[in-house]
This record gives sequence, C-alpha cells and structure tokens, in this order.
Amino acid sequence: MDPRLAQLQELLDRPTAPTRRPTVPALEERLFHLHPVLDHGFVRVVDYMGDDAAIVQAARVSYGAGTRAVTDDRGLIRYLMRHRHTTPFEMCELKLHVKLPIFVARQWIRHRTANVNEYSARYSILDREFYLPAPEHLAVQSSTNRQGRGDTLTPEQSAHILHLLRRDATQAYDTYEDLINDDGEGNAVREESPQLARELARMNLSVGYYTQWYWKVDLHNLLHFLALRIDPHAQYEIRVYGEAIASAVKAWVPHCWEAFEDYRLGAFTLSGPMLKVVRRMLAGEDVDAARSGLSKREWTELMAAVRPEVDT
Amino acid sequence: MDPRLAQLQELLDRPTAPTRRPTVPALEERLFHLHPVLDHGFVRVVDYMGDDAAIVQAARVSYGAGTRAVTDDRGLIRYLMRHRHTTPFEMCELKLHVKLPIFVARQWIRHRTANVNEYSARYSILDREFYLPAPEHLAVQSSTNRQGRGDTLTPEQSAHILHLLRRDATQAYDTYEDLINDDGEGNAVREESPQLARELARMNLSVGYYTQWYWKVDLHNLLHFLALRIDPHAQYEIRVYGEAIASAVKAWVPHCWEAFEDYRLGAFTLSGPMLKVVRRMLAGEDVDAARSGLSKREWTELMAAVRPEVDT
Amino acid sequence: MDPRLAQLQELLDRPTAPTRRPTVPALEERLFHLHPVLDHGFVRVVDYMGDDAAIVQAARVSYGAGTRAVTDDRGLIRYLMRHRHTTPFEMCELKLHVKLPIFVARQWIRHRTANVNEYSARYSILDREFYLPAPEHLAVQSSTNRQGRGDTLTPEQSAHILHLLRRDATQAYDTYEDLINDDGEGNAVREESPQLARELARMNLSVGYYTQWYWKVDLHNLLHFLALRIDPHAQYEIRVYGEAIASAVKAWVPHCWEAFEDYRLGAFTLSGPMLKVVRRMLAGEDVDAARSGLSKREWTELMAAVRPEVDT
Amino acid sequence: MDPRLAQLQELLDRPTAPTRRPTVPALEERLFHLHPVLDHGFVRVVDYMGDDAAIVQAARVSYGAGTRAVTDDRGLIRYLMRHRHTTPFEMCELKLHVKLPIFVARQWIRHRTANVNEYSARYSILDREFYLPAPEHLAVQSSTNRQGRGDTLTPEQSAHILHLLRRDATQAYDTYEDLINDDGEGNAVREESPQLARELARMNLSVGYYTQWYWKVDLHNLLHFLALRIDPHAQYEIRVYGEAIASAVKAWVPHCWEAFEDYRLGAFTLSGPMLKVVRRMLAGEDVDAARSGLSKREWTELMAAVRPEVDT
Repeated sequence: MDPRLAQLQELLDRPTAPTRRPTVPALEERLFHLHPVLDHGFVRVVDYMGDDAAIVQAARVSYGAGTRAVTDDRGLIRYLMRHRHTTPFEMCELKLHVKLPIFVARQWIRHRTANVNEYSARYSILDREFYLPAPEHLAVQSSTNRQGRGDTLTPEQSAHILHLLRRDATQAYDTYEDLINDDGEGNAVREESPQLARELARMNLSVGYYTQWYWKVDLHNLLHFLALRIDPHAQYEIRVYGEAIASAVKAWVPHCWEAFEDYRLGAFTLSGPMLKVVRRMLAGEDVDAARSGLSKREWTELMAAVRPEVDT
Repeated sequence: MDPRLAQLQELLDRPTAPTRRPTVPALEERLFHLHPVLDHGFVRVVDYMGDDAAIVQAARVSYGAGTRAVTDDRGLIRYLMRHRHTTPFEMCELKLHVKLPIFVARQWIRHRTANVNEYSARYSILDREFYLPAPEHLAVQSSTNRQGRGDTLTPEQSAHILHLLRRDATQAYDTYEDLINDDGEGNAVREESPQLARELARMNLSVGYYTQWYWKVDLHNLLHFLALRIDPHAQYEIRVYGEAIASAVKAWVPHCWEAFEDYRLGAFTLSGPMLKVVRRMLAGEDVDAARSGLSKREWTELMAAVRPEVDT
Repeated sequence: MDPRLAQLQELLDRPTAPTRRPTVPALEERLFHLHPVLDHGFVRVVDYMGDDAAIVQAARVSYGAGTRAVTDDRGLIRYLMRHRHTTPFEMCELKLHVKLPIFVARQWIRHRTANVNEYSARYSILDREFYLPAPEHLAVQSSTNRQGRGDTLTPEQSAHILHLLRRDATQAYDTYEDLINDDGEGNAVREESPQLARELARMNLSVGYYTQWYWKVDLHNLLHFLALRIDPHAQYEIRVYGEAIASAVKAWVPHCWEAFEDYRLGAFTLSGPMLKVVRRMLAGEDVDAARSGLSKREWTELMAAVRPEVDT
Repeated sequence: MDPRLAQLQELLDRPTAPTRRPTVPALEERLFHLHPVLDHGFVRVVDYMGDDAAIVQAARVSYGAGTRAVTDDRGLIRYLMRHRHTTPFEMCELKLHVKLPIFVARQWIRHRTANVNEYSARYSILDREFYLPAPEHLAVQSSTNRQGRGDTLTPEQSAHILHLLRRDATQAYDTYEDLINDDGEGNAVREESPQLARELARMNLSVGYYTQWYWKVDLHNLLHFLALRIDPHAQYEIRVYGEAIASAVKAWVPHCWEAFEDYRLGAFTLSGPMLKVVRRMLAGEDVDAARSGLSKREWTELMAAVRPEVDT
C-alpha cells in the first residue's frame, strides 16, 4: 500500500469527535472512503462544510423578510436554484482527494475557482500507474462532433491499440526509473549512473500517468463543474469523476441536488429564435425546418428537446 | 431581540453531533457566540473546515518526500509560511456572521476572494442602528498621513461632534421610517401615505448604519485580509473587526498563527536599496541619511525598523 | 469643473497614435466621452482591448481544426455564445470610468471578477452631489415582487418625498462640511474648530451620495454583469448604467452583441418539468395549470414565455 | 510553416491604425514578434492595455488629494509598489501567445487569476515537437534542495540521457500518428485501420510535448507570476519564459519595472526573529548562529542576505 495512503488511513481511523457544526450523517458514512474511478483512480471526500440548511440560513440573511413566503427549506432551495441566486450555494464547501490521469487533471484545472494541492513530480517520484481504457471505451474519432467519439472498435482493433498504449507507457516508465536511479531511500541503484533531477526525468512520462491532488471548492462552483462534466459531451474519462462526485453531493445536500436536476441538468434553454418557433407551434402553426428561420443545427436541437418522440 | 438572531440561536442550541472531520475544541467553544465589536456590531464564527493538521496534510500531498525532512507539524507550517507556499493554507475555511457599519463593509468587500451573503435593504427593512464613535476615537485629520487620524479632541469638541452625528442619523432614520410606512406586518402605519419602495427609501440612510453578512473565506486569504486590516495604518473601525477575527484564528490554528506572527506581522521587508544600506552598516560603515542614497521617507522607515531605540 | 476631470480631459485631448493592436473605430469615437446617467452620474469608456476578431482568433487557437467548419467570424461567435464556450470572450477587456451613487456601487461590487480603483473618502473630500430620483421613478413597494417597485405616486406624494430626501441629504452634507472644516487648501475655515478626520466625517453622508471608480473587466464577465443588470428585475438605478454600457459594447463588438441578444437576453430556460409540459402541449394535449404538475409561479412564467398572447 | 501561424501573420501584417488609447512605441515594435524560448517554444505579445501613466491615473482617482504630494509619475509608482497598493497595477493588461512544453504549462496554470485559451488535443492534432534539454541543462537531483538540480553531467552521461529521451518521445509520436491515422484532410492513411478518437490517442504523448495558448493577465498578477518564476528556485524551463516576458514588461512599463526590481526582486524580508538579530548586530553585539536564536537555515539565509561577503 502507498505509504501516503497508509498515513492518511491512520489519521482517518481516529474516533469521532463531537461538533456543533452542521453535520450530515449520510456523508459522514462515506467520509474518507475510496470511490474507485477508471482503472487506478479514485475520489474520496476528505471534509465538508455546511448542508442544505446552511444554504437556507445564508439566503434568509440576504433576503430577510423576502424569504418568509417560502416557508420550507426545500421550496426555498428550489426557488434559489430556479432564479440563479447563486451566492447562498457558495456557503457550502467540499474537499476531495482525487487520483486521476494527467490529461484529465489538465481539463479539470481549467475550473479556476477552487483550491488545489497537487502531488509534485519535482519533489517526488511518480508511481508506475497509467490509464489504459477498457476495450469498450475505445472508439474512433466522431465524424459529426469534432471533440467526441464515434463507433467502438472490433476486438482485434482494440487489442492492438491497447498493446501499443501499454508498450509505450511501460517503456516510458522504465526509462524514467533508469533516469531517476533511486532505490526509494535516495541512494543510487546503479552507482556508476547519475540520478537525473526529478523535474527533468518526469518529462518522459505521458499524460496517461496518474497524479493526485486535494481539491476544495464551494458548492456553487462545484455544481457548475458538474453541469459541464457530467454532460454527455464531456470526455468519458472526466465524466466518470463527475458522476462519482455527483453521488457524494446527492448524499450531502439532497434538496439542492434535486433542484439542480430539475432546473439545470434537465433544463433546456430556448434561444430567442427558438422561443419564437415554439410560440408559433403552440399557436397551431405547422412549422418545419425551412420555415422556422433556424439554422439546421438549431432546428435539430430544438426538435430533439421538444419532440423527442419524432425521429428527425 | 432581533427575530433573525432568535431564529439562529434556536438552530445553534441544538446538541452536538459526532463527526469524523477535523475538529478543534477551542474553536467549538466559541462557535456561534457573539463577539461584540464597536457599539452595535459583532463577529461570530458560524462554521469552520480544517485545522493545523489539515494544512500539513495538504502540504505533504504536494511536496511528498520533500516534506519528510521536516518531521513535526509546527516546523512544517513555519517552513510553509516562511517560504510563502500559500496553497496548503487555502485548505482551511472559516465562515463568519458579521454585523458592521456600511462604510466598514465597503472597505471589507474589496477583498474579492471570499463568499458573501449580505442583508438586502431592497427586500428587508434596516434596523435603527448606527455607529457613533466613542469620544476617545474622534480625532482630527492627520497632517502627516493622508488617510489617518491625528490628535484627539477636547471633551467639548467631541460632545459637539457626537451631537451632530447623532442628530443627523436620527433624522435620517425618522424619514426612512416615514417613507417605508410599514407596521412590521406589511401594512401601512399611516393609511393615507404611500409605502415607498424599500430600494428607494434606504438611500436616505448614511454609511454609518449597520448591515450584516455571512462571510466565508479560506485561511490564506483570511491571513492576507488580517495582515492589511490589523495593521496600525488600517482605519480603527475595521481594525477592531480584524482583531476579533484574529483571536478566533489563534484558537483555531495556533501553529499557523504563531508562524504568521513571526513571518508576516513581525516581519520587515528591506527593499533592494535598504538592503545595501544595512550591508554597509554591518560592514562597519557609519551611514547617515545623506549618504544612504535612500529617500527621506525610506531612511526614516528603515531606522524605525532596525534602530528603534534611536530617536530619528 | 472638477479638477480631476479637467486633468483627465487634458490627457485625453492628446492626438491619436498609430498602433498595430486591434482597433475599433466605432468605439474610438466614443472614447473618453461622458455618457450621462441619472442626475449626476456618468459612464465613459477609458480603454479597451480586443474586438470581435480577437474572440475568433482565441477560439481558433483553442479549437483548431474544429472551427474550420464555421468559416465566418459571425457564425463562429454565434456558435461560441450558444454553446457557452466562454473563454474566448475573456480575451477582450473594457475599462470604464463611472460616477454612481454609493448604493448602486454596493450592488455593482458584488461582481467580483473585475478590477476596481474607487475614489477614497479616507483620503479625499466627497463632492456635494447626491442622487434624487425623477418623480416618475418614485414608486411604492411592490406587493408581488419583494424586491421591486409597484405603482408610481401622485405628484403631491412625489413632491413631498423628494422634499424630505433633499432636506436630509443637504443637512448631512452641511454637517460633513462643518466636520471636515477645510477650505480646499488644507486650512481650517473656522480656526477655532477641529478638522475631523475624513475617514470619520464621511460616515454622516448617505448611500445616495455619488462616488466614482475605474472598473476594468473582461467581456465574458461584463456580459454576465449586463445579463443580470439590464434585466427588468434589476433596480432601475443600476439598470440605466447597464444600458449605457450595453450601448458601448454594441459599438465595440457588434457580432458578439447580436449573439448575446439572441442566445442570452432573448432566451428562456425551460426547467425539466416545464420541458415536459411543452412536449405534452406540442403532442396535442390540452394542458392547464392544474394538470401541468408545475407550481403556480412556474406555470405563470411558462405561459408568459410561450403563450404571451394569452392573458393569464 | 504552421498554417495557424501563417494565418496569424497575415492578420498581423495589417497596417497600423490610429488610436486614442495609451500607446507604448517600445512595445509596439515588439508586437507579434516571436521571442524564441527553449528549442521549439516562443512568447509573443499579442495585445496590451495601459502604460505607466495608466497606473498613475488609476491611483490618482483612488487616492485623490493624497497623491498630490508625489508629483511625478515615477515617484508615485515607486510609492505604490513599496506600500503594496496593488489595485492600480491591475489597470494594465497584457495578452501573450505562448508555445511551451506541457509540463511547463502545468506549473504555469496554477496561477489562476488569468484568462487562457489553450490548443485542444481533443479537437486538433498535436505537432511532432517535444522538448529536449540542451546538454548543459541536464543535471542530477540536488541533494540540498528537494526540488532542484545539482551538478551537471559528463558529456557521455548527457548524450546517453538525451538519446533515451529522444527515442521514447519519437516512438510515442509514431504510435500517436498511427492511432490518429489521419492524412491531414480527415481521411485515413491506412484504410483498413480505425482513426482513434483524438481525445484518446493524445494520452500516448509525454508531458515534454509542446502545446500553445493565449494567456491574458493584468499587470499586478503578472508581476506576482514573474516574482515567483524568474526566481533562481524556479525550474529552469519556466524561468526562461519568465525572463522573456520580463523583457517585454520592461519595454512596456519602464517605471513600474524599475520599482519592481528595487522593491520586490531585490528585496529581502526579515522575519520578526531575523529583525531582532539585525537590531542586536547594529547595536554592536557580536551575534553568531548559536546566540542568534534562529534555526540553522534561517541564520544561513540571513547571513547570505546581509553579509554576502562573508563565506558562511
């Protein structure tokens, strides 16, 4: 077992302590547990601040008498989510420990409103762990979506590609290990060879190698992250992290999650031109693509949303 | 008692719950207690995430083997503070409920890296509470420091000024109350008069009136706030809030606070030109202002720092 | 004339200089011109970076071959706006000089992702300028919208209210002037009286007094600001600033503005439950409020959007 | 030539346009020019907003009369830098186009207060360009500094290491090219083979491969970036980017750069305990490490700063 994890486990096995802070039993149960993601990655909740009631409490300070009309917490949270009153959601905070491939980390880090402590390959030696997709997740470049995947591959094609990926990743690590030339205690394995600076040797490793970090974020920014990353257009390899986090959020702030599903995940935004088309249709007009005034792509999107039963 | 506070008190009287999160008994004791500031204001800690050990835990993930040399938590925290490794301090978070004059809130809000939910005078009616300085805090405009205070006033002068401030604030609220024309239940006090929109009526109140907010911030940004706001050059009325928060931080993360005092509050930055002067002095040269090459102001600052016993 | 403005005017009267940077003639024409807002306020564009083409240029770096399909700039900008690819819009920047009432500044400053330099009443003396609404903008508290305005007032009611507001604001400034006791050269007007510290004296002024600042923001965050602040639910006094800025943005990045109008301002977001109702209606079902499964408020909002011709 | 660069060049060859915005001839001359960094990288200034005078202008709005005492721009900028009045520096903005190895990009992106558009390997195909250090920049892991480099290598050792790095990088790209299987027009090179999704194939490339981005940042945050990244403790491969940017900043805002050198780059911060030692020494006491009360490391740092001529 990774000594870092062992050390952490030790810390985490400590007995519970009494607190007067908002506490969520359903999340306490999951605390520190590894939620496996991909072949070597994980997500685990390390700490949290606040709960559904903390969102309500902050909103009632802000809107005072204005919130009296909505008497129950669930209703108020739905109201806040629907009207994009975002600041009360910033009053909750989640801290995660995540292990993830570097190319996933590079997408993730674009979300700037968060706190991060990443494992540094300048100071420390990376483990021999790289991501290999399961065969069913290999797919060809999509021809319709410039950033997506299309058809999956034959078993032979998959096996060949996985062979190449494994071969190169293995060779890269073998070389890395040679360059580092460290027995784990700081001494050279081959005395006649130099111990190349870690900050240089790491450059031989691919973006498929795993890194890890602590990531801390407020609930509003976390929901924005999830809205983008559990979307079907997100790359599969980050989507599964999003889904792992989503399940923790659901346990943590259930009213908030329900509102998020209704008003964000399940929502569809009609552009101004789309809205006009819907109005015409509801007024009884038989609108088709040509008469809609929409671009082909917008028409297709609109039909998929409001007439999913019709094959366009 | 303010019904908002009563409601909050009720929430806060709930029994403790067991948690596996990092817990700080010294801060738990203070949790939710009002710490009075100025004549009607307060600071109270509403929630917190993390402790000294959480800083260390994050640092060890980042710097891995690099932190093994520094074995104890206190030493590592001092190392991080001294070398401005700031991200581990972002792994702790504090949530405060603060009541403060509007002009203090306007300085405070310039610190952008925080989450805020402020009482809204568009929705709700402000209380009849304004700040009146204690006589000993009234002072004339400083002649040397463009943003500061100089000598204090005679008792007669103070009494006269406080009379004027009280008179105008009272009249402003009387007018506000007339314009709002609300009996607290939404009904008009004087039936024949309109109930002016709250968002308009509030404009008659001065920046000495109290507002309140929830303010949530990570420890790194909180320390930066404190470094600026408990400085002797900060305005007295915000400094006392800084000091109230500082005492909570000291109870919460004592190692961090000690390091902050040694390496930030008690530190003095020598500019390049100042450093050259100190070198010459330590090499035995008898440097005076004229031969220092420093501006008059820099020379005075340097002497005050390194030769406090000499009257310049 | 305010010496600060005179000084600025002088700077601004300088001749044009040749530049290789993206330049927008329609915005150059407006540069530095005061756009009056409310009774004493203004907005003026002081500097800008980028144009419609700069958005496209950044997008093409990001999405490379992916953007070749959309050949023209206008089409690509519309695509980016529709799919919420926000980072290319961050590549443009606008710098404004704004004069505005303090209560408007307090709403505005909640937008944290911007750079601000505000006039400081700790250092300097505020002018005798406060906001008085035009009679037609006085209105009673809305009974349906907790944060809005309802019916306007009779001429007699308006006149009375404006009298009170003017009286209190005038008295507050008279007192402020007495407390400051400064002839504009730093000398006392009344020699026997103290010159109260400016940071204290200012507390007698109301939030209706004008302040001013430089405000610099990227185009993405500016559009977000405008979406919230030119909305009919925004307070009138900030909405007029939003509209003044909007007219500058339209001149600056016309393709971007057109897309913003179609995909943000004119858009309507169907929640998950609303979307289901629209589907049922388009499938021919006669849905009414009771059978919609929506809350009363959601039903009203939906009907207002998709069936504006029906009186609900 | 890279078609992206050709396209950009075309845009950049346009004639100058007249502008009333602040313009800096010394930076105009450099605009768009490639400043080569490392073996395949570059920095080039794409746009800028503001100049030394814009810093002063913003400061005079903030501090009003308070800045009259400092009459000249250079003096005021030095005052602002020395007293850490940071907001006026945020009023200038720089936009860069940078080509850099992925491992450098990963350090760089930790600076969150900036706008970024990065080339996406989900949409586009990366070029066959990877970083190979010059032999004189290969070095062993430092034994004293956990994140640094120690002695350089013998020519034979260097040659061997560069051979390994080149071999693995070349093989990784060969595989990548096979997996992509794209003739540049979207058609398969080998018809019988699949065209693996780009978002998957890229995972075979190492962090030594080059990426590129547009990076836009305000001057305050840029100076903070430079203070950290041109420091001798920064990794060589990011330091050279920092130095390239520094030379542009020096041309752009020369007064600001001079102040930054004196008050930040050339400054040394005495901790509280260090300050006490300096006071004792200046009072004539013969202090040595043992009697200083400082840790060994702090004593060494202090001596290196104030007594650089003494060999410790």
